[in-house]
Amino acid sequence: MTLPLALSMGDPAGIGPEVIAKAWASRDAYRLPCFFAVGDVRAVGAVWTGPVERIDDPRQAAAVFGRALPVLSVADAGSIVPGRPDIEGAGCALQSLELAAGLARSGAAAGLVTGPVSKGELYRIGFTYPGQTEFVAERCGVARENAVMMLAGPTLRVVPLTIHEAIADVPRLLTIELVVARARATVRGLMLDFGIAEPRLAVAGLNPHAGEGGAIGREEIDVLAPAIAQLRGEGIDIVGPLAADTMFHPRARARYDAALCPTHDQALIPIKTLHFDDGVNITLGLPIVRTSPDHGTAFDIAGQDRAEPGAMIAAILMAGEAATRRAAAR
Amino acid sequence: MTLPLALSMGDPAGIGPEVIAKAWASRDAYRLPCFFAVGDVRAVGAVWTGPVERIDDPRQAAAVFGRALPVLSVADAGSIVPGRPDIEGAGCALQSLELAAGLARSGAAAGLVTGPVSKGELYRIGFTYPGQTEFVAERCGVARENAVMMLAGPTLRVVPLTIHEAIADVPRLLTIELVVARARATVRGLMLDFGIAEPRLAVAGLNPHAGEGGAIGREEIDVLAPAIAQLRGEGIDIVGPLAADTMFHPRARARYDAALCPTHDQALIPIKTLHFDDGVNITLGLPIVRTSPDHGTAFDIAGQDRAEPGAMIAAILMAGEAATRRAAAR
Repeated sequence: MTLPLALSMGDPAGIGPEVIAKAWASRDAYRLPCFFAVGDVRAVGAVWTGPVERIDDPRQAAAVFGRALPVLSVADAGSIVPGRPDIEGAGCALQSLELAAGLARSGAAAGLVTGPVSKGELYRIGFTYPGQTEFVAERCGVARENAVMMLAGPTLRVVPLTIHEAIADVPRLLTIELVVARARATVRGLMLDFGIAEPRLAVAGLNPHAGEGGAIGREEIDVLAPAIAQLRGEGIDIVGPLAADTMFHPRARARYDAALCPTHDQALIPIKTLHFDDGVNITLGLPIVRTSPDHGTAFDIAGQDRAEPGAMIAAILMAGEAATRRAAAR
Repeated sequence: MTLPLALSMGDPAGIGPEVIAKAWASRDAYRLPCFFAVGDVRAVGAVWTGPVERIDDPRQAAAVFGRALPVLSVADAGSIVPGRPDIEGAGCALQSLELAAGLARSGAAAGLVTGPVSKGELYRIGFTYPGQTEFVAERCGVARENAVMMLAGPTLRVVPLTIHEAIADVPRLLTIELVVARARATVRGLMLDFGIAEPRLAVAGLNPHAGEGGAIGREEIDVLAPAIAQLRGEGIDIVGPLAADTMFHPRARARYDAALCPTHDQALIPIKTLHFDDGVNITLGLPIVRTSPDHGTAFDIAGQDRAEPGAMIAAILMAGEAATRRAAAR
C-alpha cells in the first residue's frame, strides 16, 4: 500500500483550505497521489461546497480519497471567517502543522505538504521560529542550518545561501562553511528527492559581475572560490562564482540542476519571475519529504473562490514524486 | 529630412561589426530607421560579405542606406583578427565612440547607438571611465550621476540605483538624494524617449521582503520610504518599497513603467532572465539619444557568423523611436 501525503491546512482564514480542496477536485486531471488534509474540517466547508469526509486515521485516507477530500480534523479553529485571521485560527494552524509533521515523521504519512500560515499571527501565540521550515526541522531532530530551502519550478531550481537577512549583514554571514554545507545538502537533495544521479550546481557571485576579479568586492575570492574548490575536491560538479544576472536565461538554466545564490533576492527574483504561479518550496536535508506552495495566506482574496491551486498541485506532485523515490531507494 | 543614427562599431575584433551588418541586412523586415556605422570599414569586411560603402559625411548616409551599409571610416584598426582584441583595435573603438557621440551631440546624427567595447582593452590605452555611458555623459557635459542607465525589453524596464558597486558598499551608497535623482531622471526619460505621459515607477526594497517593517534591515524605512514620499510630493506616481522578488512576474510588471532597484542584480537578473536576447541599454538624462545592445564583445564567437543581431536591432529601433519623439517635441 502506498502511504498518503499529509497536508497541513495552514491558517484556516487564508487560502490554504481552498487550494487544498481545489487540488483534490483536480486529482484525476493531474494524477495526484493520495493525500489527506489536517486541520479544522469546517475551514474547508466555509469556502468550498464539494465532498469532505472526516477521517480518524491516515490509513482511512486511501478508501475515502476517490469520493471525498479526507480531513483529519485536529482542532477547533473557533469562528472561521475567511480573510479574518485570529488567535484561534493561528492555534489551529500550529496544531495542524505539528500533527501533520508528526505523522510524516512517524511513517504514517508519505510526506508533508504545508499550507500557508501567517507568521504574524503565529508570533502572537508564542511561535518563535523564523518559519515553518525551521519548526519542521526541529521536530525532525535536524539543526536548522542543515535544513536547506530550495525553490523549484519546471525550468529552474534555486537555493538562497542566506535567507531573511539584511543585505548589510550578508557579507559577514556568507562563509566558506555555510556555502559548503548548503551545497552538500543540495547535492544530496537533488539525488534523493529529484532522482538526479550526478547533480550539477552553479554558484552566483555576491557582487555585480561576480566581483570582476576583485574589482567589485572580494567575497568571490575570499569565500565563494575556496568553497567551490573544496566542494570540487569532494567530487561535486559545481561551477562559479558566476555573474548572477546572466545565469537565468533559458540557455544558461540548462547548464545546471540548481543555482546557489548568496542573497535571498538573487534566488527568489528569477524563480518568482518565471514560476510565480507554480513554484514549490521544498526543504532538503530532512528525514521526511516536505514541500509547500510558494505563496502566502493571501487573506485579501480568501473565501472569494479566486485562489489558484496551481502551486499547491505542484507541491503535492513534487512531494509525491520525492516520496516515491525515497521509498524505492530504501 | 530625417537624420540618420550614428552606430559606433565597438571593438573591431568583437561582434559589433557583425551585428551592425546583420541589422542593416534586416533593415526592411524590421523597418529600421536610416543609420551609418562609425569605425574601420575593414572590420565589417572581415566578417561579412554584403555591400558596404564608405561615406565622408553623415548627410550621405540616406542615399547609400538602401543599397549598402554606410560606414564613416574613422581610423585604422591595425590588423583586424576577429576574436583577437589588441591595442590598435581598442584605439579604433575609442575614436569611433568619440566621433559618433560628437556627431549626435552636434546634431549631425539623430542619436547614438554604441557597439560593444572591451573595457579591459580600453583601460590598456588609458581609458579611465567605468564604461561608455560615463564617457558619453561627459562628452555631453552631463555629470555622470545624472546619466541614468535603464535596461529595457519588450515587457520590462529597470533602473539599477547602484551599478558596479560591491554589495558591502550598497547600504552606504543608497541615499535619499540618489534615489530622488535617479527617479526624477527616469520619469523625464520615460516621458521624453518613450512617450509615456504619466510614468508609473515602482521601487524595490534593498532587503528581503522589503525589510518587513524594519525586522530585516532599515534602509527601506530610513532611505527608500522618505525618498518615495518626497517624489510623491513632487507629483510623481511612485510606489514602494516593494518586495523585489514579487515585482517581476507578468501581472506585477503590468503595474509600472519602470522598476528602480537598489542593487545591480535586483535589476539585471529579471531583465536578463526575460530579455537576454533583445534587451537594450538606454541612457536617460542626456541631451542626446543613446542606446546600446545589452551584450558584450563576445570575442569567443566573433568572426564565426554566429552572432545574433536581435539586441542591436532592438537598440536601433529604440533609438530611432526616441529620436523621433524628441524631434517632434521640439
